[in-house]
Parts: sequence; structure tokens; C-alpha cells
Amino acid sequence: MSHSHTPDAAQPRRSLHLNVNMLSSGFLPSAWRYADSRPDAFIDIDHYLQIARTAERGKLDALFLADQVSIADRIDLRPINALEPTVLLAALSTATTHIGLIGTASTTYSDPYNLARRFASLDHISHGRVAWNIVTSSDAAASHNFGLNGPLAHTTRYERAAEFVDVVKALWHSWEADALVGDKATGRFADPAKIHAIDHKGTFLDVRGPLNVPRTPQGRPLLVQAGGSGDGRALAARHADAVFSASQSLEEAIAYAHDLRQRAQTFGRDPGSIVVLPGLTTIIGGTVEEAERRKRDLLDLLDIDYAISRLSGVLGIDPSRLHPDRELPDDIPLPQDGGHTFFHATLAQARAHRYTFRQLVYALAGGTGHRVVTGTPEQIADDIEHWFKAGAADGFNLMPDVLPSGLTAFVDGVVPLLQQRGLFRQDYAETTLRERFGLPVPG
Amino acid sequence: MSHSHTPDAAQPRRSLHLNVNMLSSGFLPSAWRYADSRPDAFIDIDHYLQIARTAERGKLDALFLADQVSIADRIDLRPINALEPTVLLAALSTATTHIGLIGTASTTYSDPYNLARRFASLDHISHGRVAWNIVTSSDAAASHNFGLNGPLAHTTRYERAAEFVDVVKALWHSWEADALVGDKATGRFADPAKIHAIDHKGTFLDVRGPLNVPRTPQGRPLLVQAGGSGDGRALAARHADAVFSASQSLEEAIAYAHDLRQRAQTFGRDPGSIVVLPGLTTIIGGTVEEAERRKRDLLDLLDIDYAISRLSGVLGIDPSRLHPDRELPDDIPLPQDGGHTFFHATLAQARAHRYTFRQLVYALAGGTGHRVVTGTPEQIADDIEHWFKAGAADGFNLMPDVLPSGLTAFVDGVVPLLQQRGLFRQDYAETTLRERFGLPVPG
Repeated sequence: MSHSHTPDAAQPRRSLHLNVNMLSSGFLPSAWRYADSRPDAFIDIDHYLQIARTAERGKLDALFLADQVSIADRIDLRPINALEPTVLLAALSTATTHIGLIGTASTTYSDPYNLARRFASLDHISHGRVAWNIVTSSDAAASHNFGLNGPLAHTTRYERAAEFVDVVKALWHSWEADALVGDKATGRFADPAKIHAIDHKGTFLDVRGPLNVPRTPQGRPLLVQAGGSGDGRALAARHADAVFSASQSLEEAIAYAHDLRQRAQTFGRDPGSIVVLPGLTTIIGGTVEEAERRKRDLLDLLDIDYAISRLSGVLGIDPSRLHPDRELPDDIPLPQDGGHTFFHATLAQARAHRYTFRQLVYALAGGTGHRVVTGTPEQIADDIEHWFKAGAADGFNLMPDVLPSGLTAFVDGVVPLLQQRGLFRQDYAETTLRERFGLPVPG
Repeated sequence: MSHSHTPDAAQPRRSLHLNVNMLSSGFLPSAWRYADSRPDAFIDIDHYLQIARTAERGKLDALFLADQVSIADRIDLRPINALEPTVLLAALSTATTHIGLIGTASTTYSDPYNLARRFASLDHISHGRVAWNIVTSSDAAASHNFGLNGPLAHTTRYERAAEFVDVVKALWHSWEADALVGDKATGRFADPAKIHAIDHKGTFLDVRGPLNVPRTPQGRPLLVQAGGSGDGRALAARHADAVFSASQSLEEAIAYAHDLRQRAQTFGRDPGSIVVLPGLTTIIGGTVEEAERRKRDLLDLLDIDYAISRLSGVLGIDPSRLHPDRELPDDIPLPQDGGHTFFHATLAQARAHRYTFRQLVYALAGGTGHRVVTGTPEQIADDIEHWFKAGAADGFNLMPDVLPSGLTAFVDGVVPLLQQRGLFRQDYAETTLRERFGLPVPG
């Protein structure tokens, strides 16, 4: 199967793709305080096993884990990304059989040999279900954990990332497909002539190779990218098999996908060979009133200090300039880089509705950074179908309000509707994530 | 429970400790060619799952994975360590419930923050069953994968290792035991006053911390060390909870344990707080003849070129100087450092018996680097009991000739004998590996 995209047209794809993002207790910042949530869920393997099994029951495409290598958030007020993604996904791999495993790792503070090896190992262990979400690390706290006095400049980070990805891909391809001979009769285990040094000497990295892991079930793990800046889009257009975008409106999502596919063509790639998956936060209730009550209950549990901290960071202003019951200041400077989707969406909503800060926080559902849809399973399914058919998305990176209950509501309520409408698979047909995403095997 | 050691006395310990080293198809270099071995076992998760479940059925203490970050061996002739240990152990953690998980990672080519985090994550995921085997990397091939032109000098490697371990331990202790508050009523998630920067600025490493993982179920993962050199022993004496030694004789093992416990005392440690586990390669048959036949069959499958490559490396001489049907050269230079147990054992055997190289290879069972015992379950059990009661070992790091069949033979044949003799547990009593090894929880 292969995707055939005409960027702007409302041409239905053969199948919708749905991942679930496993952020600790869920995407509403107060999720850890809600109902039967357990505060230690973020370090509890049983919590993640329950999410993984629920997602696999719902025939979802993949599990996703974000990451950062520091405590950069308000640890006093909400959980952090604690468990290292490749380790956690490996633990989930032997408890699942079909679902994809997508893990984040930083190009800024990793060695390419070690990173390439961990993901290649995971691809073998999971029989071809793995993708690496490529990120750069911009927070100062992370830099201090790796011998630096501050973050690398944006441009430097992306230059290093581009070189890093080239090295990782070369390492993954350092074994030819038939390098492993395994002839018990002759005693020939492998053919060294088919295992190649990569001899990379670059600006940031010198790596000779070869990798000490044979070619993996998917040829190589898939590559995912999630940045919206110009540099991020360029990286995605060149390398990404899938993109996690953060589009807030249908028009913006269509324009984003169009731009990305055009950029991919400039690198000689098939524009249909990138799966575009915007983030989608869902708050689901059996009725509209139940959904709204759930949202209200979650926002009532939200610490306004956290919201001030979070949104002042997004807007790049001093936290003291945000007052719960006043509008945003008039003089918030526009960021210079093109990737600040959430910044613009936040500012636009605040201005259009003349929201007080508290009203804004409610409208943004606490500031997950992604589009929020609140409603019944029918309404969520309608929204997904609309975006999918409009060519705004090949599917979604689901970010449930609370985990696992928000995912369970999606799997039990929304998935059957999508299946009835012929939009989503009834069962897994493919073995690897690459096949499920309809992507060609690399040569 | 606690260990009470008088180094030289034949004082029985409360329980014997047995780990199994999961080297691909087994420790005889030809294991991958034997009987029903599958050449791709080294990258097959089902192979490792079978080993793990067999070991847990036998109530063994822990699984162990060695490692290196290069292809430094004769890939044409035998499997390598391919799958990254923390990823593979994580995959095994959710398929097991009691057995410990000991993984090797290099202090030479890792970042302490990333390494500390992966092992801390694994300790949470496994509910306290994890240990880190601390190694340095001396091979040139590894250095080329990490931007260097050659290996660090021995002393530099161990200086870096000592600083590295200090940093990792400090990161593991950067969260106080009650730093995670999780008060859903007040919204207090964690207490930042109980999460401490480590502010390390050293010779090799600058790391601010804190780690983004809370204190783990064992307080911190256990530390294991396997080097026999003077620097390696010093590192072990200062930090190791368990030591994997390579003693070839009872006298040497007793002297090694005595030396190590004395060194530990100079660091203010209880000399009984280190579990000493020599390596033990077993070749088991239902009768003496069956065991000898198994050994002969395995050695008949051994490529003599591999043996020449392996032992010329051990002896530090040019491979062309080893001839299959002649004795070793007379002028092999003695190594300067004290850690070359296997070198001395090899040379001593060759000289004492005037072995041809081929005879020497047979005597060494292909050169596993550890003591080899060939015989019936009764003979293996007798050997283990003798060493254990003589104070030469707190247990063993088992290195079966072939995996999984050599382990299955041990679990089904040797373990019941050790249990009948009151030497080995009938079932798991403890939750964490720390408790099983009788070690105190760090403050």
C-alpha cells in the first residue's frame, strides 16, 4: 500500500493513523489529581502497560513518548518525563504484539553510536515496530547536565541534528541485508565484506562504525520529527517518515502539510511518503454536558501558578506580567522564528475574545500546546473525519486529557465509530510500523 | 540478613548466589553451530526470553549481560554482543517477576546523566531488580566510534571511571526518599527542596543535576565490577556491591576475595558487603562420557583460526606465532599489570603439560576466559559446594557452554542437588536484588 497525496485536495486515504502520546497521567496539567489517578503513575510500569494494552485493543498505530533530559518544568506542581523512552518502550515491547513504539531522543546530548544502537536493538526486539522521534534540546537546565553553560544556538542545534541524523542512518545501514551468513556447516557466521565502516568525519561528529547491530526488521527504524520551526521543517522534509505537527486550525494544518510535502520534493522525495499527524487533545464525555463537566473539573484542579508559569514561557514574558483576572499585556513581542504555532494561537484567542488570563487558560484547557476537542465520541469522530477528509491530517497524535481513562473512552467510544465509517482498521494487518504507515523499505 | 565474612575461613554463608551470563548462543565459541542452536539467536528476543524464564524457573539470582561498543571480535566466526543491555533487560523485565537484571555499560563512552537515567528507569520498571556492571573500554575500535583516534590510557580510563561512578551515584541520590509528595488534595506534586543539584565540576565531567528520575526502589541500582587489574580492584573495593571475578583456581579465588575485602576496609566499608562471584563455564552431561562428548563435539566445531585470534590477543603476541600443532613460543612477555588472570592460567597450563596449541585450546575449552568444569550435575554441584564452603566464592556467574541448553541442564540437574544440600533457595523470598544479595539500603 502507498499514500497518494495531492496536498490540498479532499482525497481520502486508505486508512487513518492514530498514535497515543503517553504523557504520565495525561495532558491536562491537573490530570494527576483527577478522580482515580495515582500520583506515582509517571514512574509505574503497570500504568504504562495498561495504556499500551488499551491502545492495542483499540488497534491504534503506535505508542509515543516525548522526552527531555532535565527537570525543566514545575516539578512542585505536575509530573515530568522521567523514565527514559527506549528503556520504557523496550519494557512495553514484550507485553504487546502489534502496536508501534515511538521514542524521543535528543541529538543535542546523545552519542550517535549509542543512540543508533539502542533504537536498532529495540527494532530487533519488537520485530520492526520502532521509530525515533528526533529532537534538539533547547532548555538551559539540560545543557548543565552535559557539561555546558547554556543551550546551543538554534541554528547550531539544527546543524548538529542534521549531521547526527546522517550518522545514525549511515550506522543503521552499515550492515547489508545479507551480511549475516550464519552457515553452521562451514562455520561462516558473518561476511565482513558486507559490514561497512561509515568513516564519518564532520563538523560535530567523527564516527567510524560499523554499528555492532545487524540490519533491523524495518531496514532501519522509522524517523519522526515534531518541530514546527523552519529548521525543524527542513529536517522533517529531508528525513522524516512521520511528522507530529501542532496545528491549531484546519487551514493552518492544510498549509503546513502542503509546505512540508513541497519541501520534501525539493529533497527528491515522494511528497506522499511523509505521514502528517497533528496533536489532538481529547476530553470525552457520554454527553456534551458530561464532557464539559469533565473539562471544568480538571481545570478547577489546575494550579493557576502553573498556568502562569507555562504560558509566560510560551509567550516569552515575565510571569509577573500575567494576572489571573486581567487580559494579557498589549506589548507581547512576536517571536522571530516561524515555528511558534502555539504562541500565535494563544495570542489570537486572547485578543479575539478579550479573555482574562483565567478565561484564556480555560479556553486552552490548561495549555497543552495542541488543539483541544471536548465532546461526545460522535463529536470527536466527526472532527477526526472532517480533518482527515479535508487533507489536513493523515491521522492524529492523540493526547488524552487523563490517562488511561481518556484513552479508554476514545478506544471504547470513538474507535468503533471510525471503524463503522470505514475510516479505521478493524484489526492489525501489517507486521511492522513501516508497513502500517505505508512506507517503502529503504534500499 | 547480612553476610558475615572472615576472608580465609570455611564459613558457610546463608545462601549461595547464582547469576547466568547471557552471551548469545553460549560461551563456547562454536556454540552457535551446535545441535539446535540458531545463528540469529544473538538478536532474537525469544532466545533471551527462554533463557530468562529458565533461569527464573531455577530461582537464579540474576541475568547478566556483558557488552562492548564496537565490533572488535572475529565477526566472521562468531556472534557479538549486539543488543544494547539496558534495552534488552527492560524487554525481559516485564516478562519476569523476581530475577535480577545486571547490565554492562561503559564509563569511557557514555554520558553519566543518560546512563544514570537509564538504569534508574530500569530499577523503577523492574521494581528494584537492577544492577549496573561498571566497565571501561580499552579497544581501539570503540574509540573510533566516539571521535577518538585510539583508546584512553589505562590510568586515564580508570580515573574517568572513578569520577563517572561518583557522578552517577550522586545523581541517583539527588532525590530524597520523600521528595515525591503526590498530595492530590493540595496539588503539591513534589518538594523541590528535597530534590538537589549535585553541582559536580571535575576533571572529566561537569554535571549539575538533579536527575529527572525519583529515587528508585533499591535506593539506587546495585553496582557490579568485573575487572581484575589493580585499578579495577580499587574501583570494586570502593563502590561494588558485587564483583564478577575470573579466578582459575581455588587458592587464587580465596586470595582474590581476601585482597578485595581488605581493600574495601580501607574505604571504610564492611568487608562482608561485597558479593564475590567468580565466572564458571559448565559443560554438563548425564554421565561423564556424555559431558566429555559434548565438549569434544563443541571443540570439533571450533575454528582454529578463531582460537589463534583469541589466544594471541590474550597473550599479546602476533597470531602468526601460534601454530596449531606446536607448543607456545618460549618468549611470551609477562604483562605489566596485575589483572591478567587468564593470561597466567593459559601460560601455566601450556607450560606444565607441554601442550600443543590445539591441546591447549581443548584444555581451555576454546578460551572462554573463565574456569571450565565438565561433568555430571553431581560433579558440578560438588565443585560449587567445595568453592562455596572454602570461602572462595559467594556464588558464581554461570557461563553455560551453550544457551539455552547448558542452562536448562544446570537448572534441571544441578539446582535440585544444591537445594537438597541446603545450599540454594527453594524459592524467591526477597523482592529486590539488593535484598537477595543481603546488602543494606543506602541512606
